[in-house]
Amino acid sequence: MIRDALRPRSDYQWWQSITTRWSDNDAYGHVNNAVYYHWFDTAVNNWLISTGLLDVVDGDRIGLVVETNCRYARSVSYPEPVHIGLALITLGSSSVTYRMGVFVPGNADAAAEALFTHVYVDRHSRRPTPLPAMWRERLESLQRC
Amino acid sequence: MIRDALRPRSDYQWWQSITTRWSDNDAYGHVNNAVYYHWFDTAVNNWLISTGLLDVVDGDRIGLVVETNCRYARSVSYPEPVHIGLALITLGSSSVTYRMGVFVPGNADAAAEALFTHVYVDRHSRRPTPLPAMWRERLESLQRC
Amino acid sequence: MIRDALRPRSDYQWWQSITTRWSDNDAYGHVNNAVYYHWFDTAVNNWLISTGLLDVVDGDRIGLVVETNCRYARSVSYPEPVHIGLALITLGSSSVTYRMGVFVPGNADAAAEALFTHVYVDRHSRRPTPLPAMWRERLESLQRC
Amino acid sequence: MIRDALRPRSDYQWWQSITTRWSDNDAYGHVNNAVYYHWFDTAVNNWLISTGLLDVVDGDRIGLVVETNCRYARSVSYPEPVHIGLALITLGSSSVTYRMGVFVPGNADAAAEALFTHVYVDRHSRRPTPLPAMWRERLESLQRC
Repeated sequence: MIRDALRPRSDYQWWQSITTRWSDNDAYGHVNNAVYYHWFDTAVNNWLISTGLLDVVDGDRIGLVVETNCRYARSVSYPEPVHIGLALITLGSSSVTYRMGVFVPGNADAAAEALFTHVYVDRHSRRPTPLPAMWRERLESLQRC
Repeated sequence: MIRDALRPRSDYQWWQSITTRWSDNDAYGHVNNAVYYHWFDTAVNNWLISTGLLDVVDGDRIGLVVETNCRYARSVSYPEPVHIGLALITLGSSSVTYRMGVFVPGNADAAAEALFTHVYVDRHSRRPTPLPAMWRERLESLQRC
Repeated sequence: MIRDALRPRSDYQWWQSITTRWSDNDAYGHVNNAVYYHWFDTAVNNWLISTGLLDVVDGDRIGLVVETNCRYARSVSYPEPVHIGLALITLGSSSVTYRMGVFVPGNADAAAEALFTHVYVDRHSRRPTPLPAMWRERLESLQRC
Repeated sequence: MIRDALRPRSDYQWWQSITTRWSDNDAYGHVNNAVYYHWFDTAVNNWLISTGLLDVVDGDRIGLVVETNCRYARSVSYPEPVHIGLALITLGSSSVTYRMGVFVPGNADAAAEALFTHVYVDRHSRRPTPLPAMWRERLESLQRC
C-alpha cells in the first residue's frame, strides 16, 4: 500500500480550531475515526458561514455531501484540541471539493487528511443548482491545494 | 411547573469554552438535548486534567457518572460557541457533585443548568474508593454554588 | 447517598430496542453517560411517531425538552443491544413527563433510569400550546409508573 | 463527475441492522454524513466479534482505521432503520479493506457505499502485525466484492 504523503500546514491558509470532547475518544483511548468527519463538516460550514455565503435557516441553496474520504496517519486524543486547515481542490458548476488537514499543537505533520465534496441543490426541489458568481468568487479566494 | 431560576454567570469562576459542531443541531435546528451532556463530561474532565488530578490513562481511580440532570431554558445553535461554568455543590467521601451552567456569547442568562455526580472507584476493582487529601483540597478550591 | 431503587421491567409495557455502536463506548470501555440521552430521545420520539401523534416534518407542534435526568446503576457496553422501557409519569396541560428504564439482555435489573420532560410548543411561534384531546388520549394509554 | 454505480444488495451476504437515532438527523432533516461512519465501524466490529476474531478488551491485536471513504447517493432519515451489507475487497499481510453498502427497507438501491481499511497492530507496541491463519481464513469467508 503506497500512499501519498499528507500535505503540510503550509498548504492551508484558512484554519478552524475545534475543542475535542471526552466522548470523542473510543475504547482504544483515541479519537474515533468517525468523529473526524464531524469536524470536517464543521470546518467547511464555519468557513461558508464566516464568508456570508451560507444561511443555514433561510438560504436558497443547501450543500449536500456526496463524497468524503479520510486518511489517518497518527492518532489524536482528547483533551488536545485540533486545528483543521481548509483548501480548495476543484470548483465545478454546482459542486465543490475541499481538502482538509487535521493538525494538533506541537506537531508539524498532519494527523489526518480529508477530501470532501458538496453538491449544491435548491433547498426545496433538492435539484442541483449552479453556483452564482459571488459564491464562485469567494470559493476561488480559498488557497488551492 | 415552578422551577428554580437558573444561576447567573457570577456563580461560576472556572470556565470552559467549547466549539459547537454542525451535527450538534438536530432536525429542529437547535443543539440536541443529549449533546449538552457531552459538553458537561468534557468540562468536568478538562478541569480535573488541568488541576493534575485526573490521569485518564494511568490513574488509580476513575470517576463513574452515577447521576446527571439538566434543565433547559433557551436553545443554543451551532455555530455559536458555548461557555460552561463549573462549580462545586457537594463533596462526599468518594463522590463529587458539580453544578454547571451553559452560556452563549452576548446573553447574560444561562441557557441550561446541570447537576453531575461522579463516584470515584478503583480502576481495577471498580469499587468506591475515598478521595485522598490532595483531591479534596483541589476540589474545595472550586467555587461553591 | 440513599437513592430510590430503579424500577423493574414490569413497570414498563412499551419497549424500544436500540443497537449500540462502537463509538458509544468511551475510553473506559463502557457506554458514555451522554449516549443514554440519545437513546431516550429516540425511544420517546419513536413512540410518538408509532402512535401517529408526531409528524416531525409537518406537524403543528413540536416537543421541546425542558428537563432530563438519569441515574446510572450498572454499566452497559457495545456490542450488547439495549431495551428501553417507556412509561408515563405526569401529563400536564402542555407538558409530558416520561420515565424510561434501560435494560440489557440477560439482566432483570435496570442499568439506568431516566426522567424526561417535553413541553409542546407551536412550531412557528415556539410558544407553549395545550395538548389536544387525541394526544391526551394516546398519552394516557401508556402505562403509569 | 462520472462515478461508478453503487453496488446492489446481491453483492453482500453478511448484513447488520442498525437502529437510527433522533439526533442522527441534522438541521436539514436527514442523517448527517458523519453518522454513517459510526455505522461502518459498528458493522465491521460486529462482524469481527461475531466470528470470534476480535476481543475488544483482551485481544493481542487491534485494528486501526487508516482510510475510509463514503459516496452518498440518496438520503436516509430517522426513524427508518438501516441495513449495512459487508464484503471483502482486499486482504493484505496486516491490512483488510472492506466494502459496505447502506440500504433502507423498501428500496433496492444503495443509499451510500463505503470503503474501510483496517491495519492490524499489536495492542501494546502499536506496530503492524501480520494476520494469523485463523484470521485470514475467516476473512476469506466473507463475500468478495
